[in-house]
Amino acid sequence: MSKFIRVDMATKNVATSEVPEKYAGIAGRALTSNFVADEVKPTCHPLGKYNKLIFAPGYLTGTNAANSGRLSCGAKSPLTGGIKESNTGGTFGQKMAKMGIKALVFEGIPAEDKYFIVKVTMNDVTIEDAPAEIIGMGNYEAIKVLQAKYGAKAGVAIIGPAGEMKLLAANISFADPESNIRSAGRGGLGAVMGSKKIKAVVIDDTGAPGVPIVNREDFKSAAKRFAKALTTHPVTSQGITKYGTNILVNILNEAGGLPTENFRRGRNEWANDIGGETMTATMEARGGKPSHGCHAGCIMRCSQHYVDKQGKYITSGFEYETIWALGANAKINDLDLIAYADRECDDVGVDSIDITVAIGVYMEGGVIPWGDGKAALELIKEIRKGTPQGRILGCGAATVGRVYGVSRVPVVKGQAIPAYDPRAVKGVGLTYATTPMGADHTSGYAVATNILKIGGDVDPLKKEGNIELSRNLQIATAAVDSTGMCLFVAFAILDIPDGFQALIDMINAQYGLSLTADDVTDLGKSVLKAERGFNHRAGFTNADDRLPEFFEEECAPHNTTWDFTDEEIDEVFNF
Amino acid sequence: MSKFIRVDMATKNVATSEVPEKYAGIAGRALTSNFVADEVKPTCHPLGKYNKLIFAPGYLTGTNAANSGRLSCGAKSPLTGGIKESNTGGTFGQKMAKMGIKALVFEGIPAEDKYFIVKVTMNDVTIEDAPAEIIGMGNYEAIKVLQAKYGAKAGVAIIGPAGEMKLLAANISFADPESNIRSAGRGGLGAVMGSKKIKAVVIDDTGAPGVPIVNREDFKSAAKRFAKALTTHPVTSQGITKYGTNILVNILNEAGGLPTENFRRGRNEWANDIGGETMTATMEARGGKPSHGCHAGCIMRCSQHYVDKQGKYITSGFEYETIWALGANAKINDLDLIAYADRECDDVGVDSIDITVAIGVYMEGGVIPWGDGKAALELIKEIRKGTPQGRILGCGAATVGRVYGVSRVPVVKGQAIPAYDPRAVKGVGLTYATTPMGADHTSGYAVATNILKIGGDVDPLKKEGNIELSRNLQIATAAVDSTGMCLFVAFAILDIPDGFQALIDMINAQYGLSLTADDVTDLGKSVLKAERGFNHRAGFTNADDRLPEFFEEECAPHNTTWDFTDEEIDEVFNF
Repeated sequence: MSKFIRVDMATKNVATSEVPEKYAGIAGRALTSNFVADEVKPTCHPLGKYNKLIFAPGYLTGTNAANSGRLSCGAKSPLTGGIKESNTGGTFGQKMAKMGIKALVFEGIPAEDKYFIVKVTMNDVTIEDAPAEIIGMGNYEAIKVLQAKYGAKAGVAIIGPAGEMKLLAANISFADPESNIRSAGRGGLGAVMGSKKIKAVVIDDTGAPGVPIVNREDFKSAAKRFAKALTTHPVTSQGITKYGTNILVNILNEAGGLPTENFRRGRNEWANDIGGETMTATMEARGGKPSHGCHAGCIMRCSQHYVDKQGKYITSGFEYETIWALGANAKINDLDLIAYADRECDDVGVDSIDITVAIGVYMEGGVIPWGDGKAALELIKEIRKGTPQGRILGCGAATVGRVYGVSRVPVVKGQAIPAYDPRAVKGVGLTYATTPMGADHTSGYAVATNILKIGGDVDPLKKEGNIELSRNLQIATAAVDSTGMCLFVAFAILDIPDGFQALIDMINAQYGLSLTADDVTDLGKSVLKAERGFNHRAGFTNADDRLPEFFEEECAPHNTTWDFTDEEIDEVFNF
Repeated sequence: MSKFIRVDMATKNVATSEVPEKYAGIAGRALTSNFVADEVKPTCHPLGKYNKLIFAPGYLTGTNAANSGRLSCGAKSPLTGGIKESNTGGTFGQKMAKMGIKALVFEGIPAEDKYFIVKVTMNDVTIEDAPAEIIGMGNYEAIKVLQAKYGAKAGVAIIGPAGEMKLLAANISFADPESNIRSAGRGGLGAVMGSKKIKAVVIDDTGAPGVPIVNREDFKSAAKRFAKALTTHPVTSQGITKYGTNILVNILNEAGGLPTENFRRGRNEWANDIGGETMTATMEARGGKPSHGCHAGCIMRCSQHYVDKQGKYITSGFEYETIWALGANAKINDLDLIAYADRECDDVGVDSIDITVAIGVYMEGGVIPWGDGKAALELIKEIRKGTPQGRILGCGAATVGRVYGVSRVPVVKGQAIPAYDPRAVKGVGLTYATTPMGADHTSGYAVATNILKIGGDVDPLKKEGNIELSRNLQIATAAVDSTGMCLFVAFAILDIPDGFQALIDMINAQYGLSLTADDVTDLGKSVLKAERGFNHRAGFTNADDRLPEFFEEECAPHNTTWDFTDEEIDEVFNF
């Protein structure tokens, strides 16, 4: 018996109901995006009373399937003005699923000028005043305070000072099993939560019945086959396990697609200093933890504890994109400084991609010198202080560009372009341009096929095949993001057909369904259409599906340009 | 023999040619908007190399017709992302017209990191290094420096420090006959000029042949009839002459349409303290100049020299909208403080509407207290310093709202809504929503008919008749903005049919044409269609033609709401 819970922050009314019929068969991103498309006025102000924030675990979240711990968060994005799904690890989604909560919806804006905690238990949902001490407090410490109060194992979704300030790149942070930080990072959903005056949502799954499985034996055997795919594929069992996602620095540098100096070229001479191999060796030498999981049941374990010279924890979830943005794009050749910047982003509660790409825009505008890591870290620390400079940066790369009159700003739909040069990895360039999310590599990770040669081989430097590649991956991703699976399972299931079939078999076994691969594709298409429909009604057109004009410049070492015509780009969503 | 001059700031090439045939029959806004629609890539970055800035005098500019001194400036707006025409008084347009220059176009971005002066004479156009001393200097002083160097009567178009910083609300300032400041204020065209590294354009009309008139006697007699209309109508001969546009404070307050406290209500108790009557009495008591013209040939003389207690000049072109925004909307009941703020806006080179509306947004966000004029003035002075706070403010109301997480932000298409509450003056509300310019009262000044009962009488509080009113006025305005006439001639010619006919007769006599009133309407329609076409290609849709959602609240004293449906709003451009 699933529950659909609506929390109205204006009236403080909590309504728990059966799942509406139209949402009964969907979960994760499929649910959040259809809900936002159905219920949020597309032209509303994202920080006004008509926006709604929804949390929904995926189909398989809360089961013991490997890597099934993801939670989708959705709303109209204050950063892009379009629809947003941002998903995360941590313990929150699994607890929701085990408690039979299909969705948590937060509506309205309180009249009161104070912050609240929404507390979710098996018995009820209550709205309490937030402890005064955690207002303005960093996420690391605030999670500790909340878990001291609500239980050491309580799931926590929290906004940092950035979300309180409603900064456009504010994220929602989630406690992971070690009470460290996982984030629904992109698109400013933390500002939406802040506008609703929700400092944190705390979930206690004591007494939760767990996720019901219709055909337990079938599920068990499918789960085993699925896990086998993950433990067989070299990327999911060795590459990212050993080196984290940061294994990509040297790979992308070799491929000429590692954007350097605010996307001026695709290769540099210091990449190895900041790459995954160096990072892991550093952690090993210092007594860090090179590999661990962001949620229970993760067997890829791409996260880590990056530590200082004394072996003290600095950060985890230390991803390639953040390391790229500061290390290559902003030319800060210093992993420790980058780690402190990553920690600061997590602690203050901002998307580390948009913030670190913004650092390159500051350098482009001459505000701080190229490569000056200390200056970059100081800028990031301004966010917490709420100074004008901190607020500018906390609103992300597009706002920094606007305020400093910089025209070379790598954003699409107002969201920062991550770590793969679209001229050297053309499939992902098409994803940046066309995904309803704003520039987002995870929406259709063509890097896999362009560079890693997973799921086929499409030349990253030529147009041929990339339109289909981006389209198919965006469709598949919209489906995977609905399953509650970590997106990285795609590395394995794109190459191992039985892994993909096992994923479908698990869903069928859990729900007593008989979905086929075509159904999964149809699901993905329907999600994208709902998202694009919302954006269309919000005022987006094909003219928004364009990369910044500076990508017409050649990108060394391959000297390719972004040469897709408008008509070609518009073909991506022709399905 | 008209000249069409293109200045390429990248190559420093100047190309002077005959007027392209397609632009031969148009001038002013019709020329700038068609040119931008034809030649500027709609999706380009407004501060990048593909944007172009064009200056074009109107049909009658440079003749001795009354009030014919206006110059249109056009480009893609960095503030709205759409097309922009912003027009101005001053001496520049008349000099261009007398020299036979139909258009000055500025293209490209220099590689050099320094500012230039473009010097225009009858002999040639040259590009010189800007004198170092004027970089960062305020407009009042910089105009003096340039006129000392290039001639006391030289026409000057200049950007202030705000334009150098490419701030989104930076304007282009023009010297008036007394070397004070007139502005092409709205939409950030100063940032476009700054991106092209043009500190100023200086024009010396020595040896200019003057504007050729085909039928001199016909022109003379039509001009006389036209002037008679202006000197007969009470608004153009008495109202704004005696009290400036600030006569509107008491009128709008009486009408319940004077937005107060960031558009919370339409009437307040202190309006008379800041109104035109008080302002004129103050100037008279202090030895100011209550009435003078912004360009040679102005007979309405709505400008003034507002002076301090010692009789020293503070500002001119001290308009109702600026006084409203600080005096009513931000509750700063102090005309002197408002005058200093207006001067600071002119001197640093920003749109005084967007900046002063932004002050209300700061107050909404709790950054400074309501009514604190000193704090407001200090904020405005930050712009010149280029501090982060100054840059935020210099980017206008929309950016202040974004950076401070404020959702009650009165903007449409990113441009600030001026001085007339759309719930109490519904015709102008439709203009705000639908004009391709972003919120702009001058694009279709329905206040005239709604409140002043000029050109008919349409109830400001009801829907009936307002769609047609806004549509017809937007069409007429696009035509008037093409004539080189001050828009305020509309007050007279909407009521006095022979005044309107005389305007057409003047154009016919000047060019040897036989245009009819229908031709004028067709011209206006064609201009709007060109503008809307550009915006459409730039990514705008009907969803952008909406007022902020807070206008659904009731507005005292009439307690009306913004109640047009989307379909009704979309009817405005159904022609």
